Amino acid sequence: MSTRAKPSQVRTRVWSFREGETAEREDRLATEEPLEIRLRMGERTWTVAVTMRTPGNDAELAAGFLYAEEVVADRERIRRIESVFAPEETTGPEGSNVVEVELREGPEPELRSLERHFFATSACGVCGKAGLETLRLRVPTAAPEGPVVDAAVLRELPNRLREAQGVFEATGGLHAAGLFDASGRLLAVREDVGRHNALDKLIGRAFLDGRLPLRDHLVLVSGRASYELLQKCVVAGVPFICAVSAPSSLAVELAERFGVTLVGFLRGDRFNVYAGPERIAGLAAQTAPRRGDRLFPTIS
Amino acid sequence: MSTRAKPSQVRTRVWSFREGETAEREDRLATEEPLEIRLRMGERTWTVAVTMRTPGNDAELAAGFLYAEEVVADRERIRRIESVFAPEETTGPEGSNVVEVELREGPEPELRSLERHFFATSACGVCGKAGLETLRLRVPTAAPEGPVVDAAVLRELPNRLREAQGVFEATGGLHAAGLFDASGRLLAVREDVGRHNALDKLIGRAFLDGRLPLRDHLVLVSGRASYELLQKCVVAGVPFICAVSAPSSLAVELAERFGVTLVGFLRGDRFNVYAGPERIAGLAAQTAPRRGDRLFPTIS
Repeated sequence: MSTRAKPSQVRTRVWSFREGETAEREDRLATEEPLEIRLRMGERTWTVAVTMRTPGNDAELAAGFLYAEEVVADRERIRRIESVFAPEETTGPEGSNVVEVELREGPEPELRSLERHFFATSACGVCGKAGLETLRLRVPTAAPEGPVVDAAVLRELPNRLREAQGVFEATGGLHAAGLFDASGRLLAVREDVGRHNALDKLIGRAFLDGRLPLRDHLVLVSGRASYELLQKCVVAGVPFICAVSAPSSLAVELAERFGVTLVGFLRGDRFNVYAGPERIAGLAAQTAPRRGDRLFPTIS
Repeated sequence: MSTRAKPSQVRTRVWSFREGETAEREDRLATEEPLEIRLRMGERTWTVAVTMRTPGNDAELAAGFLYAEEVVADRERIRRIESVFAPEETTGPEGSNVVEVELREGPEPELRSLERHFFATSACGVCGKAGLETLRLRVPTAAPEGPVVDAAVLRELPNRLREAQGVFEATGGLHAAGLFDASGRLLAVREDVGRHNALDKLIGRAFLDGRLPLRDHLVLVSGRASYELLQKCVVAGVPFICAVSAPSSLAVELAERFGVTLVGFLRGDRFNVYAGPERIAGLAAQTAPRRGDRLFPTIS
């Protein structure tokens, strides 16, 4: 990885209104720029994706993305990861917006898996259930055991994530994903304008370090919990996922099917448990197992 | 458009922790399901995109997406928009996850424009500036005149958006995009788990109603302002964009280049103006025009 990096934030000047007063002052913005993720094997290269991201940890982002999308399952397959500079950019002060993952010789990478996991077929249309079934083929069906965590530990996680979030403090504009152990110790945090990118960076780091699956860990995301975030965590073996904001219906469904604990609205002195209460100390005794679908359509 | 619609929220039961107390109670989740957007012309069909969305206003979402992506520039080109049901789904209680936009006979739709607007070429790599130049070719270079709006009007917009946001109240999990006139009157609001989908629905409605470009209007988005949201507004001719949270660097750059007013952190009794202060009543006199780039890399 090149040592030159684009800045993750930029300065600007704004006109700030507050309580009727106007002031011109300096402000900081989270950098948002496109990143092209390329694969290379021998003489051949493929453009795999272009994502809008905050520069920084581009190699992790590429690795995490390729892992989550099942293009590269084994880190030994990766020979190296480089930032690529175009000729006219090499004299500039800024880093690259192209990251190239070089594979060792082997089977051609399976890029069809990059198509959305919700397949459109003439038979079934697009269907969330089909997507979940597809995912089930990729990951173990047995629910991971995972840690049992105390409610008091959970309540501390957002503070620890926020304290570690450098760019957010300055810009207010970044999503974060944090990796914790069962005692609530923050092991890593990654930030990005895109929630999915922050998580790709976090999981990409663990992938490159040979630490997957993350069976004894918790992940906390700063925003909402969507299908995409759950899917990435499930593939990485994470048994315990927390979100500062609301989960979506499909996120809850996915958590239930894969035996993942899903906590939402984790903020202040409160949180909601949407799936997997048995991993929260003291709660298992209070909650009888339930059967069947837990999601019901509403009228409104 | 079919009258059968999937629900935009579902009920579930959660274990709620608050101040040390545990209670099991009902909660509501924003529905998240995939939507396949198809184009049809005569006997041919193309799958154009699959997006994770909250069901509701699927026709608007498809129309807005196709407009923003320049696949369909003229609403007269659209013969009709239908929800498509697969055979085994037709007896179920729920709506469709496939929406098909039927075009009148004419030139084949240009689907290459669906590729990301940041092109990867061997010459320049991927570069935000190239993306902005590409966008410049698509929209008028002259800045829209647009309305001049009073600060007191701006401060009211988030309240009006929130009051109109039905599903968010219940689920806390939806992004919203609102369309306002210059007096602050809310003309339309659309919600979705995806910010870009909420905006596609909003602009899609205006497109189908023949009301584009939206030269006298304001758009307010509930979250952050990213490149993608600015791009969609610029294509639709919106001269005034507000966000409840932070803008990204590229959003500010795009607003400046296209003469759009960009307001961020619009909440409570405050907001920041990142570009186009001349459209805020009373501010133009206080702000001298500035030259050159306003974004500077920072050290941190």
